[in-house]
Order: sequence, then C-alpha cells, then structure tokens
Amino acid sequence: MIKAYLDHASATPLRKEVIRAMEPFYGQYFANPMTIYDLGTGVKEKVEEARAQVADLLGAAPERIVFTSSGAEANNMAVKGVALANRKKGNRVIVSAVEHHSVLNSARFLERLDYEVTFLPVDSNGQLDPERLAKTLDEDTVLVSVMHANNEIGTIQHIAAMAALCKDKGVFFHADCVASVGQIPIGVEELGVDLLSISAQPIQGPKGMGALYVRKNVRTMPLIHGGIQERGMRAGTENVPGIIGFGVAAELAAKEIDENRKKLESLRNDLIHGIRERVPKATLTGHPEQRLPGHVSYCFQAIEGEALIFLLSQNGIYANTGSACASKALKLSPVLGALGVAPDVAQGSLVFTLNRTNNRQEIEHVLDTLPGVVERLRMMSPLWKDEIETAE
Amino acid sequence: MIKAYLDHASATPLRKEVIRAMEPFYGQYFANPMTIYDLGTGVKEKVEEARAQVADLLGAAPERIVFTSSGAEANNMAVKGVALANRKKGNRVIVSAVEHHSVLNSARFLERLDYEVTFLPVDSNGQLDPERLAKTLDEDTVLVSVMHANNEIGTIQHIAAMAALCKDKGVFFHADCVASVGQIPIGVEELGVDLLSISAQPIQGPKGMGALYVRKNVRTMPLIHGGIQERGMRAGTENVPGIIGFGVAAELAAKEIDENRKKLESLRNDLIHGIRERVPKATLTGHPEQRLPGHVSYCFQAIEGEALIFLLSQNGIYANTGSACASKALKLSPVLGALGVAPDVAQGSLVFTLNRTNNRQEIEHVLDTLPGVVERLRMMSPLWKDEIETAE
Repeated sequence: MIKAYLDHASATPLRKEVIRAMEPFYGQYFANPMTIYDLGTGVKEKVEEARAQVADLLGAAPERIVFTSSGAEANNMAVKGVALANRKKGNRVIVSAVEHHSVLNSARFLERLDYEVTFLPVDSNGQLDPERLAKTLDEDTVLVSVMHANNEIGTIQHIAAMAALCKDKGVFFHADCVASVGQIPIGVEELGVDLLSISAQPIQGPKGMGALYVRKNVRTMPLIHGGIQERGMRAGTENVPGIIGFGVAAELAAKEIDENRKKLESLRNDLIHGIRERVPKATLTGHPEQRLPGHVSYCFQAIEGEALIFLLSQNGIYANTGSACASKALKLSPVLGALGVAPDVAQGSLVFTLNRTNNRQEIEHVLDTLPGVVERLRMMSPLWKDEIETAE
Repeated sequence: MIKAYLDHASATPLRKEVIRAMEPFYGQYFANPMTIYDLGTGVKEKVEEARAQVADLLGAAPERIVFTSSGAEANNMAVKGVALANRKKGNRVIVSAVEHHSVLNSARFLERLDYEVTFLPVDSNGQLDPERLAKTLDEDTVLVSVMHANNEIGTIQHIAAMAALCKDKGVFFHADCVASVGQIPIGVEELGVDLLSISAQPIQGPKGMGALYVRKNVRTMPLIHGGIQERGMRAGTENVPGIIGFGVAAELAAKEIDENRKKLESLRNDLIHGIRERVPKATLTGHPEQRLPGHVSYCFQAIEGEALIFLLSQNGIYANTGSACASKALKLSPVLGALGVAPDVAQGSLVFTLNRTNNRQEIEHVLDTLPGVVERLRMMSPLWKDEIETAE
C-alpha cells in the first residue's frame, strides 16, 4: 500500500543531516556552554554557529535570537513578556481571533492580570483586515500579535502592512511564524516585525526546539526566570543537541525554500482541484490563493472529522482535523467558527499539510481514496440522509 | 594525561542506553502523540511508559508528572503557577536564601506582581532551620519552596520536617530536587511535598528535559499556555525523544541508586579528606556530613575561582566555581554570601560534582594536582603575600 504522510503541521521526521549533526553532542561534546574551560567554550562556539544559522533563515542578527523549547514557548514569551515588561506604556493587547492556542491563551492569562485584550475578527477567508486593526489601535495598546499563516486553514495574513501600522503608532508587533517557516520566506526586515516565533519541527528539525526573534531595544521579560543563559532572556541549561539540529535544519530550509515552494504549490493545487472535482459538497477553507504552499484544508458536509482521519489512516493516508494541539479537546474548531463556517460543516474538517518529502504519487493516492471514504461515511450519516431528502 | 571530569552538576554525557532508546524517535516513530491515527497513538503509548518510569523514580503516580524543558522551567512553573492560581488563598511566598536562581528569580517576578516574598536565611552550613520556617508561616502564606540539596555547597535540607509543617498549616510545599536526583532517594510521600522539580541531565538523561511532580488537588497554573498537552498543564508539542530518554535514565537511576550512593560517598570522603590534608587554608563549604554523596566544595583563601578552574582544566581536571548558571555573571556567590563566607574567601570557590562514571584514579589525580595549582596561584596573588606577612 502507498503511504502518504500529509500531517507535517503536527510532526515531521527529522532530516538525516539533522540527526547526524546532533549525535556528537550527546556523549562527546556534552559540556555546559556556560562553563569557562575548553570543553565548554568549544560547545559554546557551536551553539553560536547554530544561532547564526537560525538568524540567517530570518534575516536577523544572531544576537537577536533566543532559543526556546517550542513555538508555544516562544509565543508565550512574546505575548506575556512584552505586556508585562511594558505595562507602564499601555495595558491593552490585540490579537486576531484565529491565533494559535499558545497566543490566545497567553492573552487570556493577561486578562486575568487585568490587561484589556481585544480579539479581532477575521473575514470568511480567515484574513484580518489591516484597516480594521488601524481603527482598533489606541494609545493604550502595547502589543499586537498576528500569525503569519494559520495552521488550520493555511491563510497568510498581511503582516507587513499591519506591522507598519503598529510601528507608526509605537506599538510592538509580534508574528507567530510557526506554520509558515520553511514554506514561504520570512524576513524580519521585510515583515517589519518586532518579535517573531518559529519552531524547528516544521523544517524537520528536532522536537523540543523553538526560537523567538526580539528586535533590539524591544523591552521584554523572561518567561523562564533564572540564570543568565540566552543573554538573560531564557534560563535553563541550553539544549545543545537541539540547538545544533535546529541550526542545520534552518540552513537547509533557507537554501531550499524557492525550490520547495514551487514543488509544494504544484502538489497543493493538484490536491485542491482534484478534491473539488471528485468529492461533492466539499468546501475549501481558508484563502483560495493567499495560503501556504503546502496547505490544503476542506470541510465535507455531514461527516465527522475524526472518523474521516481514522478511515484515511487505514488506507495509509495521515492527515488531521483542525489543530493537533486541540484535536482531542474540541469537537468544533474555533478557527472555523471565526470564519463563519456552520458547525455541521465545520465538524467535517480535513487538513493536509505537505512538505518537501511528499510526491505526486501520494497526492494521486489521496485523490483515488478520499472520494470513496467520504461516500462511505456519508452513507452511515443521518445528516447526509437529511441532506439528500431535502435536495430531493 | 588522566582526565577527570568532575562537573556533573553543570552537564553530563548521555548514557549509551539513553542515546540508543532515543534514536528510533527521530525518524521512525516521529508522529505527534496527540494525533488519533495509529502512528500517533503508538508514540503516545511510549510517552506514557516513559512518564511511568520517571514517576517510579519519585514514588509518584504517572499522571502527576508534567514533563518540562528543564529543571528551571519546572521550578518556574511550581513557584509562579501555585502563587498565581491560589492568590485568593494567600499572597505570600517563602523561599530559602540559597535557592537556585530559577526559584529566586521566579519569586522576584512575583514581587513585581505585588506578592510578598520572604527569603529565609540559612545557617553557616547552608541549612534552613525548620523552627525558623514554623515561626515565619502565617495565614497569608500560599507556598514555601526549599531545595532538597544545594548545587553549590551540597547541603541537604530537612525537607520532610518542613513539608510536614506546611501541611499542618495548609500551605503548599515545593522542593527543587534537581541537585539531588540520582544521588539520594527522592520519594514524594517520604518527603511529603506537594510539588517537586527534577531534570534529566543529572542522571545522564537528555538536555532540554525536566519534570514537575504536582500532587493531586494542588491548584496550579500553566507557565506555557496553549494546547492541551500534559493534561492541559504544559502546552507545546511533546519532545518525544527527550521524554523517552528521560524515562530510560530514570529507570536506571532508580535501580542503581544504592550502589551509586555508596560509591560516591567513598570517593567524596577521600577527596574531602585529601584536600584538607594537602592544601593549607582550605575551607569546606556546606554541611560536613549532611551533603550530597557526590559533592565536594571548598574555598581557598587568596585565590580567584576562575583562574583555578582554568589551571585545573589545563591538567585535565574539570570543575566549577559556584553555579554554572551564574558563573559568568557574578564574581561572588550569593549562596556563599548567605552562609556568611567572607568575600575574599568566597571568591576562591571550587566545586566538584561526581557521578557514577568517576573513579579513584581520578580522585588521586586531583589530589596530586590541586595542591601545586593552588600554590602557584597563591604565589602570584597579592592577597596571599599579605596573608603570609600578617602571619609572620
């Protein structure tokens, strides 16, 4: 049976180059990079090389990169850290309604500390209108956090326009780029952001690694207090093998991004068009054009997403329904809710996230398999019977 | 030349069993444990096995273990999480003056949020008197955090007595066991604690891994908000290879603890006595008996700790001066300050932390080398000249 792993937003296998680069740092070069003897200073040099590799991927200066243990930690550090460190400047934080849980729930934590948080609605494609943001910004706003692209619907936001608006008003701007890293170019200057989160897994780097870019002179507060690691911005002994692996993954991602993007767009378009042609009552979610190169998301009427995922996996196809972070928690996706997708449609959500390892044969396997699986589930669905009877 | 790595509190090489156990989880079993298809549920099972291994080391139920990215993160989560979640219960936090930076600076963060924090002094051996704690506890106290053993001076605290006092008063008790894990038994019931932090590195598990034990019905708040990973207590995709490696390290540490302890105590005693005999004006820091089995710490008058570390490393001996987390930040150790060690003595601090891989030949190499290195540095020291002249 052909296998098609198309859930790269949930997890990826590490690249061989990454595994190989990490190995010497488990047993051989194990010393703490904060120590002053040669074993440690040698490791410190390698850590700084990796920091430069990650910085290059973002067009940033190495010293502006703080390594974290995940994209979620980077998002927490950005949202809470800026709000807490700049309370005298303002008490209001603005985020979009479709942010990742790590941003939304960091914002809700700030509400508990009596910050005012505004969750801005998006249009039916999942985009936040920069005009809407402009009207909402006020004197009291200290931070705006909007994701570069959404993990569930693939929609890309107008980050540069929104960051420019914030810059004019002296408001800090953070972009969560965990879904976009490796798929589309991310430049801190081109985007004009003050803070930017990524993680290593989307580019087949190690689990347990993320990074936060913090522009010079942006006041922030550590999330993890303690020692002076990461220029005093993140305590805890450095995860040296993780940092080394992240560096290699970042270097490869930067080198391959154009080639990768073209390949992914072609596979994505075939998948989007193929599903539209072969599966009735299927609705593409997210923006039809301004979406991630490797992202395909649909809702199928009268179907349960979990059942769909399960049947697909029995056919060697691995996909997701909504966000992996919440797949067990929520029957209905808040992101699809924010787009105005009706609950009975939203529950049949299917998300494919492709990466460089996928190929056309896998896409064809999905297009050969999916229509039958959807039909089978619909035959068992009372909702579908209603649908047919109504149509008759 | 004989090499003697005696800085295991700073970093350790991973055990071969740990490296081997982690390998399949990079490329083969890479799926996200939160996913519902077989690739993910298989990984989830392995994660839960590892959780049970870590829980066993602490005598805890597996579901009370939250995996974190470091001991520092676990300490932050305990101190901030309990204080923030129980503010209605009380506004005061008590910590000892010799806590790790990750506890001290978490407490200082709470001060910024208008919590009242009390830093309790210790005696000249570094111990906090339970009587002193009893007198300090009041109605408004919500949390007490005291480390099991100190990383800089090796002193073991009366955790069980203090935890019992707190239990009587309905105050939550947290113990930082990062320095003690693998050296002395840690049982959550024997100690009677509500929260307990460890990390994987001291037992030659992977960097970037820690764990927090949280007793049932102890209200806490996540440090990293977001998805529902770790029963909603710690967001971010699980660092699966790290968790697997931590599990194996924990299982081995539990099995070997008695044997390990005996071996370390014997090496430690030889090193302590040998230094006392061979190096003049050397002061053992920390408790003479109630100290970690693998911990030796001395202050040498009229010497700079950094110069001592550097010269020792040229002789293949790797040790530390104070805590690795602060070694570049602080000339003088706040821990030694809290013990009442005079600044000119404290600056000549030397810390050896042994583990299971060390042997008698290495200890003899230190005892053969150290007296000459100390003498050489003193010959160059103006402080030593004063000392000799005063003596004459």
